[in-house]
Amino acid sequence: MSETFTLDPQLANDSIELMDFPLCKLLLANDSNYPWFILVPRVAGITEMFQLEWEDQQQLLNESSLLSEFLLQEFGGDKMNVAALGNVVAQLHLHHVVRFSTDISWPKPIWGQQDAAPYSSEDIDALKERLLPKLASVMPD
Amino acid sequence: MSETFTLDPQLANDSIELMDFPLCKLLLANDSNYPWFILVPRVAGITEMFQLEWEDQQQLLNESSLLSEFLLQEFGGDKMNVAALGNVVAQLHLHHVVRFSTDISWPKPIWGQQDAAPYSSEDIDALKERLLPKLASVMPD
Repeated sequence: MSETFTLDPQLANDSIELMDFPLCKLLLANDSNYPWFILVPRVAGITEMFQLEWEDQQQLLNESSLLSEFLLQEFGGDKMNVAALGNVVAQLHLHHVVRFSTDISWPKPIWGQQDAAPYSSEDIDALKERLLPKLASVMPD
Repeated sequence: MSETFTLDPQLANDSIELMDFPLCKLLLANDSNYPWFILVPRVAGITEMFQLEWEDQQQLLNESSLLSEFLLQEFGGDKMNVAALGNVVAQLHLHHVVRFSTDISWPKPIWGQQDAAPYSSEDIDALKERLLPKLASVMPD
């Protein structure tokens, strides 16, 4: 590897780092309008999923599916929205948003709909305490 | 299998069927604002990727990655947008949109931005003639 992975500064600015999965960094988007999580493969120089090695693509899928199933159940949502967009931040990152038929943007996709509603530091601590032990047990090493 | 797969009527209404990959039906969204393609696994009763058997999840990923790489090169785009949303049509379907920094909605996601600009039947015939032979050669049986 000629490059070392570093998290894109805008992603870092707009989110809270929760934990590392085997391949990806797990971020919480700093917008309390939705339970919104982001997986970022810790591989330098990647902007599209197909650019990852096939083994890493499969690992990303595995982490995405385990995360999606966990989040939908944990938050009791109606639908997962899973998306790799990257028009603004090119570094590959995969959004996972728990949607509710009662949420502020339903049924539209969330991007560009509403201003972000940042979490308080107490909210973040409470979410970490609630989620991190469960996520660690869901995700195989 | 207790159910037989049938394409959701709204998806059918908003798109043109192009071909069948090993797992998925490939649709062209009827909106000429963007090269916009949709993969629909031919499995009944599925709304989330994680609900597919793991082998089918891997096959969906494979078809998605081959399609994404092909489309980005074929259309000379700047970015792929790949998304499983499903807030309106619950049947699992995976959007693949070739984005250009000059397109009508850039850098926003496309959903809910612009009215669809339907293709003419001549446009559709020309796209099929251009794409189908290449897609058949890209996608292993």
